[in-house]
Amino acid sequence: MYNRVALIGLGLIAGSMSLAMRRAGVAGEITGYARSQATRDTAREIGLVDRVCDTATEAVKDADLIVLAVPVGAMGPVMAEIAPALKPGAVVTDVGSVKKSVLDAVMPHIPEGAHFIGTHPMAGTEHSGPRSGFAELFDNRWCLIVPPEGANEGEVKKLEDFWSALGANIERMDPEHHDIVCAVVSHVPHLIAYTMVGVADDLRRVTDQEVIKFSAAGFRDFTRIAASDPTMWRDVFLTNKEAALEILGRFTEELFALQRAIRTGDGDTLHDYFTRTRAIRRGIIEAGQDTDAPDFGRGKKGG
Amino acid sequence: MYNRVALIGLGLIAGSMSLAMRRAGVAGEITGYARSQATRDTAREIGLVDRVCDTATEAVKDADLIVLAVPVGAMGPVMAEIAPALKPGAVVTDVGSVKKSVLDAVMPHIPEGAHFIGTHPMAGTEHSGPRSGFAELFDNRWCLIVPPEGANEGEVKKLEDFWSALGANIERMDPEHHDIVCAVVSHVPHLIAYTMVGVADDLRRVTDQEVIKFSAAGFRDFTRIAASDPTMWRDVFLTNKEAALEILGRFTEELFALQRAIRTGDGDTLHDYFTRTRAIRRGIIEAGQDTDAPDFGRGKKGG
Repeated sequence: MYNRVALIGLGLIAGSMSLAMRRAGVAGEITGYARSQATRDTAREIGLVDRVCDTATEAVKDADLIVLAVPVGAMGPVMAEIAPALKPGAVVTDVGSVKKSVLDAVMPHIPEGAHFIGTHPMAGTEHSGPRSGFAELFDNRWCLIVPPEGANEGEVKKLEDFWSALGANIERMDPEHHDIVCAVVSHVPHLIAYTMVGVADDLRRVTDQEVIKFSAAGFRDFTRIAASDPTMWRDVFLTNKEAALEILGRFTEELFALQRAIRTGDGDTLHDYFTRTRAIRRGIIEAGQDTDAPDFGRGKKGG
Repeated sequence: MYNRVALIGLGLIAGSMSLAMRRAGVAGEITGYARSQATRDTAREIGLVDRVCDTATEAVKDADLIVLAVPVGAMGPVMAEIAPALKPGAVVTDVGSVKKSVLDAVMPHIPEGAHFIGTHPMAGTEHSGPRSGFAELFDNRWCLIVPPEGANEGEVKKLEDFWSALGANIERMDPEHHDIVCAVVSHVPHLIAYTMVGVADDLRRVTDQEVIKFSAAGFRDFTRIAASDPTMWRDVFLTNKEAALEILGRFTEELFALQRAIRTGDGDTLHDYFTRTRAIRRGIIEAGQDTDAPDFGRGKKGG
């Protein structure tokens, strides 16, 4: 599909893309670059890509598809660095969790004749780094395709086919809508999970050991979410500020209403609220994003 | 271990106890009662216990161990009802998620010569009802043993051995400490999950269909938590009010600090906070309450 693909950044997503591209046979040569020497060494050692380069410009030379797989805050500088080395007609894409600010940061650097099309594969684990990738990460997960205004339709279609070949389901979205949807289903839930884990850790009346020991039933799911990469999440909240603050505002408003129901002993309000949420859960099972089976098939098995 | 065991309430926990008792061979006859005719019919149909009774007093007749497996708010009335029918020396226990208020509600009704010892098996799934039980639910999960002051040590030990035979790990706790620990690791995380799911459902700018479709990565775990039994959770918050409100207060305080960091663009605060939570997650994996493996072994497989 693409004769040469360059991966800039060699973490969980880029590593999984390399393995999924090999599985699907959709790339001629896969080059890779990571800022850290240690990451490049590891990638070479495990053969994560066909050729690890010591500079980003070397990696993107003659590449037909360039994937920016770096934290959202680093997209602009990386794009500025590689722009002069792009071959004519090259397609640049990213895999960031935020789209409006990535487009703002990247588009001014895209040279005449090259293309930029944002993507967001909604898949991940709590692990990061070059050893964390696996070919099945994107299987049956959504990949949101977010083209800028006036994007070349042929190149957008080709990139969609590429993500389909990697196992993902495709949906197109505009940048603003993408950012608010992700604030709801991903960004704010992560922030909340981080907060709850932080509260437990701070609490004097309950020891860390107790929190860890008795973490089944609720808290454990929070800790799993809260173990994701700190740099990635910092950038998400700094760059999707507006949508995150909007959803957070709604969240605290509702939480305060439930808190008041607890304080005043208003059992009906609590019961009604808890009943309503069951329907959403059923919808998720029906939509195939989770199963009702004992083992959820999360993580390395994809799902 | 106990010649006759009576289960009052025939939902997930009681049903699983019956199946686990049979597996372990620790009960002579198991009787059961549920308030709802439909539940009793189902329990009879699937042979969940040895004998389904149409009244609670019939079920507890000649029982050596009586298990109150009803919502926390129903413990007092049920105890008052069965108290006159208890045989001398009978041990009554409960499986509620809250302990201080259960002891307050139940202890005044315990007849001279009978014993009450609270327990809290920390295991569950998002399912409820007589068909949801399975023998492995308690395997390698914690069961907190919460005796009232002055409890008979021999009977407490025997009940601990009983729960061990059902597969659980045992830890003793006093009622106050139990309630604050559970507020942190279970009750407040559940409330937060319910709230987040409610926010998503309410939001006009994002459709329910989108929330359901793109629920991987964060939100899905929340919906799973938020699908638990509404009546049980209502009673938890009404009866563990003090501890829940204390932890909620801490939570909103920390959440506001992170919200301010997002608003002011303070990336260092966010990064530091997100880094700190990783350690807790590692501790949980090391403590064996979760695994690092692809399939978490949650739900019906126990774990």
